[in-house]
Amino acid sequence: MLQMEAMETSNYFESYEDLDIHKLMLRDKARNTAYKSSILSNRHDFKDKVVLDVGAGTGILSVFCAQAGARTVYAVEASNIYKIAEEIVKENKYENVIKVMHSKIEDIDLPEKVDIIVSEWMGFYLLHEAMLESVIIARDKFLKPDGLIFPESATLYSVPCSVPSMYDDWEDLDGVSMRHFGLKLRENASTRPITETVSPEAMLCDPEVVVWLDLREVTVDDVKTMEMRHVAVANKTGKYQGICLWFSCTFPSRLTEPVTLSTDPEEPPTHWKQTIVVLPSDIQVEKGTPIAYDLQLARSEENNRRYAIEVTMLHPDEVEHPEYCTCYLTKCILVRAMLDKYEKGDLSGITEK
Amino acid sequence: MLQMEAMETSNYFESYEDLDIHKLMLRDKARNTAYKSSILSNRHDFKDKVVLDVGAGTGILSVFCAQAGARTVYAVEASNIYKIAEEIVKENKYENVIKVMHSKIEDIDLPEKVDIIVSEWMGFYLLHEAMLESVIIARDKFLKPDGLIFPESATLYSVPCSVPSMYDDWEDLDGVSMRHFGLKLRENASTRPITETVSPEAMLCDPEVVVWLDLREVTVDDVKTMEMRHVAVANKTGKYQGICLWFSCTFPSRLTEPVTLSTDPEEPPTHWKQTIVVLPSDIQVEKGTPIAYDLQLARSEENNRRYAIEVTMLHPDEVEHPEYCTCYLTKCILVRAMLDKYEKGDLSGITEK
Repeated sequence: MLQMEAMETSNYFESYEDLDIHKLMLRDKARNTAYKSSILSNRHDFKDKVVLDVGAGTGILSVFCAQAGARTVYAVEASNIYKIAEEIVKENKYENVIKVMHSKIEDIDLPEKVDIIVSEWMGFYLLHEAMLESVIIARDKFLKPDGLIFPESATLYSVPCSVPSMYDDWEDLDGVSMRHFGLKLRENASTRPITETVSPEAMLCDPEVVVWLDLREVTVDDVKTMEMRHVAVANKTGKYQGICLWFSCTFPSRLTEPVTLSTDPEEPPTHWKQTIVVLPSDIQVEKGTPIAYDLQLARSEENNRRYAIEVTMLHPDEVEHPEYCTCYLTKCILVRAMLDKYEKGDLSGITEK
Repeated sequence: MLQMEAMETSNYFESYEDLDIHKLMLRDKARNTAYKSSILSNRHDFKDKVVLDVGAGTGILSVFCAQAGARTVYAVEASNIYKIAEEIVKENKYENVIKVMHSKIEDIDLPEKVDIIVSEWMGFYLLHEAMLESVIIARDKFLKPDGLIFPESATLYSVPCSVPSMYDDWEDLDGVSMRHFGLKLRENASTRPITETVSPEAMLCDPEVVVWLDLREVTVDDVKTMEMRHVAVANKTGKYQGICLWFSCTFPSRLTEPVTLSTDPEEPPTHWKQTIVVLPSDIQVEKGTPIAYDLQLARSEENNRRYAIEVTMLHPDEVEHPEYCTCYLTKCILVRAMLDKYEKGDLSGITEK
């Protein structure tokens, strides 16, 4: 006999929520495959080595490391999910290799330094949840000087895009104009970006790197505030309606092709989807139109697991364009022409202008 | 400049949640199309008629009715979404036809009786949210004796099924045994059914009707408690791991083929998905295995928008099987043989037994 009524104790509810989130992550093929293949294709790095799994969750990454031949894996998990990790370790027969430890990484002591750190710390738009800080602390505290970090680098990208789900979809919904509903959706989105899978066709420009993080060197201060200015050029005609954020991570590899885990709209969807900062009103752009904006990610004061994302639209005439800008502004066309001539070693005509 | 931090006022948050739910519903093609085509293919029923839209939400169904030629549409909505409905009515230029009213249907007075009631009241497993009661009250209060209800009937189905997402998926996840995680998922599912899209292949038997509701006659008492006994027969070899619930609705039609909105796993997915009561442990069944269970849906005391769903497993030997049961139990095989002979008018041999 099964009862449907949810027990309303917050405790139960949390545990339920936890499981749902882990279920979502564990069913993310791209995620699992990237870690599995990067770990198992580098057995030579793991053989008889000591590994630290930061935020081990259900312990799946620790099991990959054990399968790759690790001597010892310290699986550190702060939430109650550690209990499940202990059972997963048992059913995979790695009790002698994987030590599950219920603790925050900040509070733990390990009996030895580690050769490798593995961690799946990435949140929405890479930095949401700010679990990266735990990895940095673990690295400084426990990683040997020549140790490896899986993944070893992460890159956050930004690109102007269309967002039909917040705009055009409501122009005519099964013969009904729902524009006002779209307007309300955008009002809500003005205080928090949306998380959804965007089609590659919605991208209007080439993406720009917001930040590239070398996990071997990045510091906590490095990720407190990140800023970038992007003078993009529309590579098609379309509606500029938002800024799409996505990330990729690269894993260490000495002998094989490095494995990359990417949430690029061009790649198969992941549970991270993409993060979109939706503009309050849209702008029609033609191929060649310059799109300039400043993007800032600042660690929130109230909740330091969150970032405030600020997008400031800039007037393309009032900002400096990249040296070889492909936009249609006269200045950039002239500079391009001059650079072309210069490359050909032909400077005649430039003086004419 | 756009800020990401969510404003934490519960008010804002509710409104955000509301919009998300309506976004989900409005993007449900099967839902929109069923209402649109049933309403617009029956213009003769709507021409110059008075319509009541119970729980109008964003007002899309009211607009369909206006498009179908209704003289007046009373769009009654209790939540703040009514404000959006007012704007949707304006942008579709139906201010003179559609009267948006912010009220519970229980508290409202209409200046006249109505010819037609339209409502999208269905929740998960049809009855979750129990909005049906509002439709019944509206019908008894406002519908003319020969009035129409869109939809006019609803059927809830039940069928034993496999639930790989709660069982087999965790046997070997990318080379790691995650059985204990599946076990924990099932522990949580024991207190609340899960909502997810199930593949048709996961169905083990033919579905049985739990309840058929004629919206023209059903009473509030009729839906307080519903019980059914199902002696199903596995039509394939597989793992019996849960009971899948889904529903279909039929719309009135005098001249055309009646439109049906179905959440059958065989049909394209809808935002209702399917509801699955997950069994705490699974049972291997062969083709022909009888599967007997009692299913009860009882309106919850604490929260009367919810139902308690109880599934009681029964021993197939201890319950009466349908007269023409296709299961492999000797008794049913003999009865089948006898009935076959009887239909052929040939009773010889039966006395032999």
